[in-house]
Amino acid sequence: MITQKTINLTPKARGFHLVTGEIIQRLDSLPDQGILHLFVQHTSAGITINENADPSVRADFSSSFNHLVKENEPFYTHTMEGPDDMPAHIKSALVGVETSIPITNGKLNLGTWQGIYLCEFRNHASSRKIVATIYS
Amino acid sequence: MITQKTINLTPKARGFHLVTGEIIQRLDSLPDQGILHLFVQHTSAGITINENADPSVRADFSSSFNHLVKENEPFYTHTMEGPDDMPAHIKSALVGVETSIPITNGKLNLGTWQGIYLCEFRNHASSRKIVATIYS
Amino acid sequence: MITQKTINLTPKARGFHLVTGEIIQRLDSLPDQGILHLFVQHTSAGITINENADPSVRADFSSSFNHLVKENEPFYTHTMEGPDDMPAHIKSALVGVETSIPITNGKLNLGTWQGIYLCEFRNHASSRKIVATIYS
Repeated sequence: MITQKTINLTPKARGFHLVTGEIIQRLDSLPDQGILHLFVQHTSAGITINENADPSVRADFSSSFNHLVKENEPFYTHTMEGPDDMPAHIKSALVGVETSIPITNGKLNLGTWQGIYLCEFRNHASSRKIVATIYS
Repeated sequence: MITQKTINLTPKARGFHLVTGEIIQRLDSLPDQGILHLFVQHTSAGITINENADPSVRADFSSSFNHLVKENEPFYTHTMEGPDDMPAHIKSALVGVETSIPITNGKLNLGTWQGIYLCEFRNHASSRKIVATIYS
Repeated sequence: MITQKTINLTPKARGFHLVTGEIIQRLDSLPDQGILHLFVQHTSAGITINENADPSVRADFSSSFNHLVKENEPFYTHTMEGPDDMPAHIKSALVGVETSIPITNGKLNLGTWQGIYLCEFRNHASSRKIVATIYS
């Protein structure tokens, strides 16, 4: 059985945001067993799963990605949409725009320290859309 | 319900290629609702989803990945297959070899600006095989 | 039809490890056709698919990831858990913690040269848990 729903997340500042709660809240009840697939419909944001406790981890994610994929590289040719745009596309491809999470006993079967990150790579983005598909 | 098909893409030059049309053309009709899973059966190519409009984005993807994972690093030991080989393996792991895309109302439910990229990381590759699985 | 099982891998040293055999051994028999989803329940390890033959590829993966995401960067603030901890989180997000593999004719439909890598990014990790979900 497959159910689908489009979720509109609240707009986020540039950075890595823990959205496990926001996503679960927008979904209807989860099946006993299955998979939740989350697909971000954008090319300058991403989704990944990482540490859910210490906010310093998410701050260091921002610094690390800014270090890994710098703005204003001399080899960028796609520069019309601002210095944050082309790095945002590359960062989006590095973390990916989709992920699947097992559902077990009616809950997301994440590890103890895992949470879902919405990765916002633009300086001034509006709401991001996620297509959530549950199969059970 | 699950259906599967192996797609042989036409050979591509090294770079990032928009293949949304080529993949849809090779698939039989899509179900009303479900997921399309695409799996690249190679270790020096990848698949990702990004900007479908301006070709300068794909050119900058090539420059950025060549900058991020350089050829001829002094620490490479796997060098027998040419200077493009080991970087190709690393780049493949960074973008990944598989992705899942929601199907809604009989179409791929991509965002307005999203397309599927085949990422060819070798200088002289032949046709790449993708296993396409649709579940609905 | 969906079946699920948690697999406890044997503890691994820091590095990239071929675990195709270990994972298949822990699974019950595979269906004729379907998908295997593997989800690592940790934030400093990852899973990816790459070259299954020459161990020098996996050694170069370690060197390349250590070069790409260095220890002791001056911008890290999350440093209490040791110099290998914050780089491990970033590397985990780069390769990802989950992957889906097609099952065809009762076997994982990997390419000839593909194997499953467990990517252990900590110096002294214990056993890692993977939630394996098969849908068919």
